[in-house]
Amino acid sequence: MGNKRIIQVINPNTSRAMTATIGAAARAVAAADTEILAVCPGQGVPSIEGHFDEAIAAIGVLEQVKAGRAQGVCGHVIACFGDPGLLAARELAQGPVVGIAEAAMHMATLVATRFSIVTTLPRTLIIARHLLQQYGFEHHCAALHAIDLPVLALEDGSGLAQEKVRQRCIQAMREDGSGAIVLGCGGMADLAQDLTRELGLPVIDGVTAAVKMVESLVALGLGTSKHGDLAFPLKKNLSGQFESLS
Amino acid sequence: MGNKRIIQVINPNTSRAMTATIGAAARAVAAADTEILAVCPGQGVPSIEGHFDEAIAAIGVLEQVKAGRAQGVCGHVIACFGDPGLLAARELAQGPVVGIAEAAMHMATLVATRFSIVTTLPRTLIIARHLLQQYGFEHHCAALHAIDLPVLALEDGSGLAQEKVRQRCIQAMREDGSGAIVLGCGGMADLAQDLTRELGLPVIDGVTAAVKMVESLVALGLGTSKHGDLAFPLKKNLSGQFESLS
Amino acid sequence: MGNKRIIQVINPNTSRAMTATIGAAARAVAAADTEILAVCPGQGVPSIEGHFDEAIAAIGVLEQVKAGRAQGVCGHVIACFGDPGLLAARELAQGPVVGIAEAAMHMATLVATRFSIVTTLPRTLIIARHLLQQYGFEHHCAALHAIDLPVLALEDGSGLAQEKVRQRCIQAMREDGSGAIVLGCGGMADLAQDLTRELGLPVIDGVTAAVKMVESLVALGLGTSKHGDLAFPLKKNLSGQFESLS
Amino acid sequence: MGNKRIIQVINPNTSRAMTATIGAAARAVAAADTEILAVCPGQGVPSIEGHFDEAIAAIGVLEQVKAGRAQGVCGHVIACFGDPGLLAARELAQGPVVGIAEAAMHMATLVATRFSIVTTLPRTLIIARHLLQQYGFEHHCAALHAIDLPVLALEDGSGLAQEKVRQRCIQAMREDGSGAIVLGCGGMADLAQDLTRELGLPVIDGVTAAVKMVESLVALGLGTSKHGDLAFPLKKNLSGQFESLS
Amino acid sequence: MGNKRIIQVINPNTSRAMTATIGAAARAVAAADTEILAVCPGQGVPSIEGHFDEAIAAIGVLEQVKAGRAQGVCGHVIACFGDPGLLAARELAQGPVVGIAEAAMHMATLVATRFSIVTTLPRTLIIARHLLQQYGFEHHCAALHAIDLPVLALEDGSGLAQEKVRQRCIQAMREDGSGAIVLGCGGMADLAQDLTRELGLPVIDGVTAAVKMVESLVALGLGTSKHGDLAFPLKKNLSGQFESLS
Amino acid sequence: MGNKRIIQVINPNTSRAMTATIGAAARAVAAADTEILAVCPGQGVPSIEGHFDEAIAAIGVLEQVKAGRAQGVCGHVIACFGDPGLLAARELAQGPVVGIAEAAMHMATLVATRFSIVTTLPRTLIIARHLLQQYGFEHHCAALHAIDLPVLALEDGSGLAQEKVRQRCIQAMREDGSGAIVLGCGGMADLAQDLTRELGLPVIDGVTAAVKMVESLVALGLGTSKHGDLAFPLKKNLSGQFESLS
Repeated sequence: MGNKRIIQVINPNTSRAMTATIGAAARAVAAADTEILAVCPGQGVPSIEGHFDEAIAAIGVLEQVKAGRAQGVCGHVIACFGDPGLLAARELAQGPVVGIAEAAMHMATLVATRFSIVTTLPRTLIIARHLLQQYGFEHHCAALHAIDLPVLALEDGSGLAQEKVRQRCIQAMREDGSGAIVLGCGGMADLAQDLTRELGLPVIDGVTAAVKMVESLVALGLGTSKHGDLAFPLKKNLSGQFESLS
Repeated sequence: MGNKRIIQVINPNTSRAMTATIGAAARAVAAADTEILAVCPGQGVPSIEGHFDEAIAAIGVLEQVKAGRAQGVCGHVIACFGDPGLLAARELAQGPVVGIAEAAMHMATLVATRFSIVTTLPRTLIIARHLLQQYGFEHHCAALHAIDLPVLALEDGSGLAQEKVRQRCIQAMREDGSGAIVLGCGGMADLAQDLTRELGLPVIDGVTAAVKMVESLVALGLGTSKHGDLAFPLKKNLSGQFESLS
Repeated sequence: MGNKRIIQVINPNTSRAMTATIGAAARAVAAADTEILAVCPGQGVPSIEGHFDEAIAAIGVLEQVKAGRAQGVCGHVIACFGDPGLLAARELAQGPVVGIAEAAMHMATLVATRFSIVTTLPRTLIIARHLLQQYGFEHHCAALHAIDLPVLALEDGSGLAQEKVRQRCIQAMREDGSGAIVLGCGGMADLAQDLTRELGLPVIDGVTAAVKMVESLVALGLGTSKHGDLAFPLKKNLSGQFESLS
Repeated sequence: MGNKRIIQVINPNTSRAMTATIGAAARAVAAADTEILAVCPGQGVPSIEGHFDEAIAAIGVLEQVKAGRAQGVCGHVIACFGDPGLLAARELAQGPVVGIAEAAMHMATLVATRFSIVTTLPRTLIIARHLLQQYGFEHHCAALHAIDLPVLALEDGSGLAQEKVRQRCIQAMREDGSGAIVLGCGGMADLAQDLTRELGLPVIDGVTAAVKMVESLVALGLGTSKHGDLAFPLKKNLSGQFESLS
Repeated sequence: MGNKRIIQVINPNTSRAMTATIGAAARAVAAADTEILAVCPGQGVPSIEGHFDEAIAAIGVLEQVKAGRAQGVCGHVIACFGDPGLLAARELAQGPVVGIAEAAMHMATLVATRFSIVTTLPRTLIIARHLLQQYGFEHHCAALHAIDLPVLALEDGSGLAQEKVRQRCIQAMREDGSGAIVLGCGGMADLAQDLTRELGLPVIDGVTAAVKMVESLVALGLGTSKHGDLAFPLKKNLSGQFESLS
Repeated sequence: MGNKRIIQVINPNTSRAMTATIGAAARAVAAADTEILAVCPGQGVPSIEGHFDEAIAAIGVLEQVKAGRAQGVCGHVIACFGDPGLLAARELAQGPVVGIAEAAMHMATLVATRFSIVTTLPRTLIIARHLLQQYGFEHHCAALHAIDLPVLALEDGSGLAQEKVRQRCIQAMREDGSGAIVLGCGGMADLAQDLTRELGLPVIDGVTAAVKMVESLVALGLGTSKHGDLAFPLKKNLSGQFESLS
């Protein structure tokens, strides 16, 4: 690894196949002097499709952030489109922490006046809606779409989910009046470049976007602010299963 | 307990003293046919003062909701002002789940055109701000105040924190142009009635407010919607420490 | 009446049939120690379908609030979906005043992430839109629907309006992505429970919701704030037809 | 009167002195071919300082609009800063109806990026806040000020209220970063021109602004839309004191 | 010209035919004592259909405002629906400056609760969206429509564009639930009156609306505020092609 | 230059000293394979302190974007805090275009929950306010500050302006409750790192932030969307001084 800086890419679910997909996508765009450390929690949920799943995944994210910090990583990516545990992870981290939903949305506003989102299950749309509101991008999102397949369908090897994503992107391009499309799942990371080429408009994946944002923040000497409400968590006795987070 | 309906009041931190305070406040307003079951997680954080603490507390909330459902409770209160794990808990629950921040804010908008919030540490203000935005009450909140003491200062027996809350309420009443004050911590539940009397304007505690809201929803035959994005979590293998949540 | 507390349910229009429907719905959910006093103005409009009707109805609401206060009622419900005269009534009242639109909307946000509204005439939709904006629930409302029948069609005994409401609720459930439906007229109060059962998602009536909210506020010792802009009206010579409001 | 077009300027309170002030201000800016008909209700409240007063005043406004329409006036001004009864009056009117709050706010956004409001009693500030929200001008208003004197202090001949308005305008100019000031009461109509001159920035009165807006709409051939939700009120039996509004 | 006041109507593009259309429309509604000076830049873009065109047109607008001020005009209209250069022009001007988009939108909110916009090319919709947001009228706009023909199609004499505008207005009236329609191009100025008559709802052109608003502001003694951020531009050496703007 | 990718950093004003400051700051953070081409217009305004200045500067920006594209640059930075001509430049460009205000604001939201802005003259605050609104960051900005010195004071060698910036940053850190500070002028680009170190919280400069964002977008294969409203400008005869932009 030499003197490379390490960016930790955390897949918040426990799927190793998806972790591999995400890691590969991250490496494909990383700078020459960036090492990608793609990890996932040892315990948790195999896929994240709702608030309950997110709450569990957030613990795994925090454990990984703590581990990553011990390993000297320079920043962290949360590679699930709901950005689970984002603000908690920022409290715990010294370096920057970027979620893939926010990364993709930020990038989209830089290349288009409005964007569409294509995600997996309809029940996750509300998570995207809340993020749009929290991040300030409600007016920049023209429409949200769900292909109505679970997250892990992206890893079943059939290509069905990928084709459904493609068709929804084409539909969104034709009907929404958007200039860009945001892919709403970490498991779609490998589709963005081909779709961008085929459709002729920016199709944005958050994993790769977040890696570049962390690289940028590190290059600028910017970590998570430790002044104010993202300061390190106050020291407390964390009991039981949470002791490891102390 | 006979044929009483049981409302589960979950203190998301592990402080038994605060659980007792909260339980007593809940019982003081509960209807004759309501049984209050005040609980707290066996494992977690002793107090909740940030996003990191909230992420941990959310797991405890979910475990308690699951346990409560097994015990046949008719609804659940999340008794921490950040409403940690609220939407995740709603996915898990059949009956209504009400957070004390939302309960207090809702009640405040019914008795005043604008309200002020008085909470503990400044670093928790951002949590209240985000809730105001998510719940739709940004325009109804005139100002937020922090007494700059930790949550557990409310349980140290000195009365200092209580006096600071009182003084901030008086200041808020004089300066903010608000018609009501929302107390921003479950540990302040026992102060609301006295302050309401002393100050001559509604000082609202969320614990008691949430109990009445759950009673109301139950009386109306309304549980958490299982149609759409708050449907029960999809069945998954929850590994390791989370197995108990399966 | 014994030592029961009395909640005054004010139908702002002059239809006695609708007042009876509303009163019956209110009684069906009232606590054992609550007495429902269902009233309507002696003079005014037979139904409320626009801003003009609302302006007239507001006077009747104020007269009833004043009368109710003289009778010692503990709180007031304004049982028309536009909540006509709400803030004026709050100035006049000592106890809480709750409108059925706000009550239903508040309840809906507690059991679903987004809700739909089903009301009577299209021309009243703007009233609901303005209330959503004023109460802060714009983001929580996914869609508004009108059955395009006048309010009094709900009282003609044919069941036609009721069937149209039912069909619109089914359509809203299928198309809006909402988890709950709010019924947008006091005259629909008796439909909520059956529709909730048939559709399998919360269908919320404001009359019953408002009764429980007033009960809750009273139990919490909370009346309308008399500090600030909802203080009692300044004493003035009210001339002519308004003398009775002095 | 010849073939002049008549604009009806309705003072919603019953103060004849204020009606005279308002009428004179209106005439001072009216076009040569405009006749100003300044009226006030025969019955109602002597001044408007809250929602209760507004509800009563709205009836007087509607009666005057009906009378004005019978007299053939081409448009109507509602000359109280809360614009009481505005949407109800629009339903009743054929020609345009303009409130003085909206007129002043609209004009202010045309000559400055942000404006301040100076009004009478603090309890009326909430009315201005709600109008800013409804009209869309929240972001254009930098600050709201109240001189803490009742409306009729403007008519007591002492000049005290006028001096307080002047001082608050000076303070607002220095501290708010606003480019214009909106006077928040019909009774301040005669102060705008002198203050504009003295302060060197636009001080805007709504009475005069509204007269010019009605003239403009009439010249453009634009009346209140009768398509949709501002269509004439549906015909109903208005009983008792409201019969005259049928 | 005698002692008439002159209002300068600036067509920001270089099309003389459109300048004539705009000038004629302006004159048709101008007061007897108003002289309309319809001008367009000598250099620039023949039509404005995007942000690039607007940036160029803004320079022409500024040159004309400077020239107009030298000629003693009392106010300025910017007669392109994107209101190009509006705030820059206000800095440069002493009198009022009104854009036709803002004028039409303001007027629409006075006669209807919500309005629709009908404009030319789809790529200009984003400009209208941004103006709605900046002016505060997002909630007042029910829908935006584009006829998908370039601006100059309105000047080709075939009547095709005009017929498409008419059809879209009819569609908007039927489907949007709007009470008024705003025409989204200066080149449509001559269509408003006929469409208003045919459709039976206010169809509003911004050129005529802006002329009346400038007349109104002048009559009220209100120019652009020179206090604060619209003060005259700071004196600077403007080099090269911009010297004439010094 | 070898096979380096070139990022064009456009200082929209004509100050060569400031262009040098900006270029040096850009180079300090650029990746090893990035060449910074720092340019400014030959004609225009020496500093940008209002909308008028911005309108002129926008033309220079467009000329530079056109020239940069001819030179094969891969992306463009607009190095003035008002982001003058941003959307117009995006129409003209193939690669990404990033303004320094948006870059700094985006970065700030990734490392803090809320930020403060410190800029030069008070009259430019409105420009920042409008950008916050357009970009969606209103809720993320806690306060705006102006040092009340002109832009070029940053280039006078006295260090006075720099010291004022420093003091305002310290004040903002103490009073605003913000976790980060955004420097509101391209001429402050060299201050960010030292202030970040001294104050112990992220002080963010937009020039360096924008360079990293353009590098990121290029690495992701994302240029400005040419689908929809940022497509290349329609071909037109640009007359006179604007011919060079054809």
